[in-house]
Order: sequence, then structure tokens, then C-alpha cells
Amino acid sequence: MELNFNPGDNVRLRLAKRELDGQVLEFSDSSVLLLKLKSGYNVGIPKENILAGRVLSKFKPSEKKHEIPKGEGKKTVGLIMTGGTIVNKLDPKTGGVAPLTEVGEFARFYPELFEMVNVEIVSPFMIASESMDSSHWKKIAEVAEKMLNDKEIEGVIITHGTDFLHYTSAALSFFLKNLNKPVVFTYSQRSSDRASSDANLNLQCAARFAVSDCAEVVLVGHANIDDDYCYAFSGTKVRKLHTTRRDAFKPVNISPIAKIWPDKDKIEFLREYRPRNKDKVELDAEFTDKVALLKFYPGQDPEILDHYALKYKGIVIEGSGLGHLPVSEAGHSWSAKLKKHIREGLVVCVTSQCIFGRVDEYVYSNLRELAETGVIFLEDMLSETALVKLGWVLGHYGWKVKVKEKMLENFAGELNDRLEID
Amino acid sequence: MELNFNPGDNVRLRLAKRELDGQVLEFSDSSVLLLKLKSGYNVGIPKENILAGRVLSKFKPSEKKHEIPKGEGKKTVGLIMTGGTIVNKLDPKTGGVAPLTEVGEFARFYPELFEMVNVEIVSPFMIASESMDSSHWKKIAEVAEKMLNDKEIEGVIITHGTDFLHYTSAALSFFLKNLNKPVVFTYSQRSSDRASSDANLNLQCAARFAVSDCAEVVLVGHANIDDDYCYAFSGTKVRKLHTTRRDAFKPVNISPIAKIWPDKDKIEFLREYRPRNKDKVELDAEFTDKVALLKFYPGQDPEILDHYALKYKGIVIEGSGLGHLPVSEAGHSWSAKLKKHIREGLVVCVTSQCIFGRVDEYVYSNLRELAETGVIFLEDMLSETALVKLGWVLGHYGWKVKVKEKMLENFAGELNDRLEID
Repeated sequence: MELNFNPGDNVRLRLAKRELDGQVLEFSDSSVLLLKLKSGYNVGIPKENILAGRVLSKFKPSEKKHEIPKGEGKKTVGLIMTGGTIVNKLDPKTGGVAPLTEVGEFARFYPELFEMVNVEIVSPFMIASESMDSSHWKKIAEVAEKMLNDKEIEGVIITHGTDFLHYTSAALSFFLKNLNKPVVFTYSQRSSDRASSDANLNLQCAARFAVSDCAEVVLVGHANIDDDYCYAFSGTKVRKLHTTRRDAFKPVNISPIAKIWPDKDKIEFLREYRPRNKDKVELDAEFTDKVALLKFYPGQDPEILDHYALKYKGIVIEGSGLGHLPVSEAGHSWSAKLKKHIREGLVVCVTSQCIFGRVDEYVYSNLRELAETGVIFLEDMLSETALVKLGWVLGHYGWKVKVKEKMLENFAGELNDRLEID
Repeated sequence: MELNFNPGDNVRLRLAKRELDGQVLEFSDSSVLLLKLKSGYNVGIPKENILAGRVLSKFKPSEKKHEIPKGEGKKTVGLIMTGGTIVNKLDPKTGGVAPLTEVGEFARFYPELFEMVNVEIVSPFMIASESMDSSHWKKIAEVAEKMLNDKEIEGVIITHGTDFLHYTSAALSFFLKNLNKPVVFTYSQRSSDRASSDANLNLQCAARFAVSDCAEVVLVGHANIDDDYCYAFSGTKVRKLHTTRRDAFKPVNISPIAKIWPDKDKIEFLREYRPRNKDKVELDAEFTDKVALLKFYPGQDPEILDHYALKYKGIVIEGSGLGHLPVSEAGHSWSAKLKKHIREGLVVCVTSQCIFGRVDEYVYSNLRELAETGVIFLEDMLSETALVKLGWVLGHYGWKVKVKEKMLENFAGELNDRLEID
């Protein structure tokens, strides 16, 4: 089947069992046609499966230049752009989804944001979140610190890829000391050129929160799959729990901080928070990369600990349930290796791969046996937050000797200290 | 504060800010008193924090012997006991929670089950689920196969620790070919001697499902935190998502199979299922332990792949979002190492640590670049199910050459083939 499509064209395809309408993203360079559906999703279709196809409308690139509108009497927020879907659009050159090439484009795609507030944009880098590491967390924190100590700026918005957003929000929660203003991460799950993009609601709610009274690091995003309102989640107690839904982020072991509407001035706070204040923010971004996260699975050979002990100062092990790892009754007990490596200096923390709930070293005798090896049970802390915190704690000179105390000190809401368990 | 408590005593403690009633679990051998609260939870209390305490009632061990009641006109189910909280009770000797020591005790704790059906009990071993490995999965499957091919037995119930139950249920889903009757895993989150134990409802609903028309491997447990009804979940699409709640198990990427009430004969089926039939069940438990699960985190050094390539035939990597791992734009790209090890024979599959949703190699150019390394994107398969399936596929002589095809073949409902993505 000979097809004469160009990237950006709206087309109709006939397949064996159905017709599909959509926008061509990639066409020429592979055996697969990449199509953006009306529903907003991209699907790859082997060209050999296309029985017929026609162009509904040709793609017309826009040549207009755009400047950032500024207005009197509006509050000013800092915007740190770092990459991710929220700054992606259909690229007419490659046909794929690519980052916006200039800041002005951002204003064109999201005009509502710029009507609400004046925006000062800094983009330290533009990469997807899975490509980030602690050096990127530090760069973002440095930019944020400057903005937060600028009297003209009411709060900071950080746009970020979704996949590892919760690692970066945890990092900034620890890196920014004496926080004085809101630091608001936001995202989109669908790129900016889509009618169904979730970015606009998220950005508007992020802007409302950025000028609010709450001086915490939060993640603002869709509360559900409708476009009605957003939640603000604590940066240390939130996790991506769906690959594609708009409300991909869910709070873990604590309620959202607030409910935010794009078109209402009032934010509904759902629990206590640190209020806006006059403190000077300090950067406390000492961090060692010599930490690792290890998800345990049944039958796993404990010799993996030898590997980690060679290269790392500390590891977080995602145990099961209440924090279980195999001890004496198992054919492959982890006790001996844990004892040895902990005695020789490795820090080992335990979280739960259940995600929700709390680890507890007291319930069963095999947990007490595990606790005796010297592992640190991290209460209701998320594994992802725990990894970031461990790198931060071990990155501080002199904290190694009190690592358990520091890991169990509540620096940024990463622990929810309920007296009773559930 | 001198306290004269024995394990099993019901006591009242006065602490600085409150009073606590509960049953003493452990007392003598540490600085912590372990107390089972009325709410059913165990808490450890440093003895130095106890201002006063008194015994409300002394513990009285039971000496009665119990036999398994059998009745005419009732259907017979097989019960495979393997360990876990459901067969635990307060042990008056150690004060901790310990397994029931004889099968007769099980009937005493759960009389409702034995009123509903005749029960043939086999216990191949009694260990916690975190201590199991593939050898235990095989043993359970062998016992189940014999029971399923026994004309007198209507279905099989397997009691199991909760923590890694979803691995074992996935294993049995693959190991039992031509399934003819229900295979029903169940559990409890709280031990049998507790008024609030969730075991009774789970066991009764499991018994109802075990004599039902559905010839699938399922997990039956609380649908919510009330004691009203249970869900039956597909054994390959279920995951523990809370450390302590009764409804700890949640279905992933598909609805439950059925809703079951303990006191109603009718089961409400929520979707299609494989019906009860006359097939002869075959054991297909070829399995290699040379597989591993690896959860990726930001900044992770790809050299970890060298370690796995040395020791394993295949790995499942929990990527982020749609299945991302860092490729060319990242300072620590995984592309080169993946290409090298896959070329040399390592099988690498990719799932998502989002848990919910589906990986997709077509949406972004960096996913297409990752796909070119030869990794296999596992659609909406759970990471835990994927690990078990990979060990099973690679355990079969001759399947290595068609591993991608086999991993993407839907053997036991582990893939949910929707034409459109959400």
C-alpha cells in the first residue's frame, strides 16, 4: 500500500477490522506508522496492516513569533523548566514528540498561566526525568534557592517529566532548608499540542498554589481524570501509580495537602502545613551517589549484597509486607550477609514494596530476627524517598555515625508519625 | 517499674500520655514489651516508658484436643496449608506469634469452613511467604495437581502468607496446564486467635469459590475493610498494596473475577472466566532460577547489568512510566550495555514501576531507541508475574529461541489485550 503522508497530517486509515483517524507523527523511516489518535494516545501501526489511507487535512506549521506577556498588578512566580511531556509538542521536522525549542513557545501553548501571573523562566536543562540524576536535582535546587530568596518572586513552579518526578520532589524537600515560599512541581501526561492535554489545568493550579500561604515542596496535578481541580501532594509522600492517566500521582500514607481549582481564588487546605515566612532559604544539597535501591523477590540470592557492599555506602531494600526478608527458616537466609556487611560499615534500610502502610519490626519473630542484623526499618517512608534521603544523609560529613537517628528524623514530612498504627 | 506479666496475659499499661489495654506477646527477654492491642495490632513499647501496669486477666492455655469434623452430603475440597499468618496463633511458650502445631487446631480456629465443606488437608511445609522460592511453588503445584485430578475433590484451597502470595499465585497459574477446577489462594492479615481476624471471611468465601464453576487460579480475600464480602482476583494480575489492611490485595489492570459472600450460595461473576471442565490437569513446572528482577532508579549505574549478565539468563527491569530507561541523552545511558548483553544472550524484559497501566515502546523517541536494544516490552504485565513467567519460559527446553513470542503469549490472563489503550 503506497501512502503519501507527511508528519503532522491528519489522516484516516483503513485496517482489517476498523478505521482509525489521527495525526501522523512518524512515517518515513521505519516499517511502523506512528499515529496520534483523537483520544490523544500514540499508537504504532505496522505499515503492512494498512489497507488504505487518505489525508483529511495537511499539516500547516505556524510561523508566528511569541513573546512572554507581562502585566502590571500581577504577582510574579519563578518557573524552572526541566523537560518532560509538558514542554513537548509535535515536531513537524522529525514527526516525533520533541521539546519546545524556545521559551516563548511555552507562553503560546499555555496562555492562561501567563494571564494569571508574571512568569520568570529559567531552564537549566531540558531532559526527560528518567535521564536525570542527583546532579540535576542539585541544579534545580540551586536555581530554586535563588528565586526563593528574591523578594519579587512569590513562589516557584518547576515543570518536570512525570516518570521520576517523585524522586526530584523528594530531593528538593531535603535540599531546601528553611523554606519560605511554595515550591510547586507540575507536569503533564500528554503533550502540549493536544486538545486533551492535562497541562493547562495543572499549570493554572500550580500558579494558584505558588502564590499561596504554604511554604512546602509539593507536586500539583490532576485529582482525577476530569479537568475540574487538582491536588497538592507532599513532595516526599507521593508516587506515580499509573503509566498514562492524568491523575497518575497518588498520595501515600497521608492525605493531599490541598485541593485547588483553576478558576477559584480560594485553596482548600486539607491538613496542616508550614506557612509562608520570611526565612532565608539555604541550600543543603550535600549528597552521595553511593546509595542504591534494591527490590527483593522470592528466592533472591543474598550474594547480591556482596556486590552492593563493594560499591555503595548504603542501600534501601524494598522488603515485603511489614519489611520482611528471609531469615533463619529460609534456605537462602539473608541474615548472615546482612550482619557481616552492616558490621563492616554498609548502611541497610528496609521499606515495603506494598507501598501503602508501614514496616514494623515487632510483629513477627522473623522481623525481630531481621532487626537484630542492624537494618533500619523506615516506618511508613516511601522507597523512592528513602533512597534520596539516604544519599542526602550519607552525603553529610559526620552524619554517618548517627545515620539511624537521621533516617528516622522527620525533616520534610517523609514520616507520618501516627501514635496508633491505622 | 517492676511488672509481673506473663505472655498471654491481658493487661492495662499507663504511659505518659495515655492508657493502653492489650495482650502481652513478649515480655522477658528485651527492653521492649510487645503488646497485642484490642484493635488487633501489635506494638512494641520500651519498658522504660511504662509508668504502671496491671493484669486484667491471666492467660489460660487450652488443653482440648480437636478432630476434623466430616459430614455426609457435603462437597469435599482439598486444602493445602503452607504457612503465613492464617495458620499463626499466639504461642504461649514464646509469647510470639507462631504456626498452629497440628492440623486439628486449624479446624478449631475456623469451624465455619468445616461446616460448609469436607476438607482434605495436606501441608507440604509451613513457612512464611518471604522464605519461599521456586522449589516451594513446585511442591504446592504437585500437591494441587494430584488433588485436581482426584474425582472426589471439587476444588483446591491454598492458605499462604500474604507478602509474596502474588508470586506463588502467578507460578501456579503457569504451572497447572489444562486447569479443570478452581484453585483458590487465601490468607489472613491478622492471626487466628484474634477476634478481628480476617481469616474466617476469607476462608468461607474461598470455600464457596472452590466449589464454583470457575477453573482458574485465583486469590480470594477481603474486598474492603469490612467483613461483608470478598473478591476473587486473577492469580496473575493481583498485588499486595498495603502492609496491614484486610483488603491488602488489589487487582491490577483488570477487574476482579467475582464477588463472593460467605452466606450466599450465589457468586456474582464480574467478567468471563474459564469454566469447570473434565480435562486432566498436567504439571508444567519447568523453571529456571537464573532470572532476576531489577527496579531502576534515577542515576543508577548500568554496570549492574554486567553483574546480572554473569549470573542470570534473563532479567525483568522495572523501568519508569511507559517503560523508560535512560538512553542517549543521559550521562549514564543504558543503551550500550543493554545491546551488548542482549547480543550475548541475556533476555531483558521491561515493565513499569507505576504498577498500573501499560508500557509502550512507540510513544516517545527515547522509548523507540530503547526498543532497538532488543529489550522486550511486556505490555500491562505486572513485574512480579513477569519474573515468574520469565523463569518458567526460560526453564523450558527450546523456548529460548522464541522467548519474545512466549513472553507476549497470554497463557494465564497475565496480559489484558485491549485494542485501545485506556
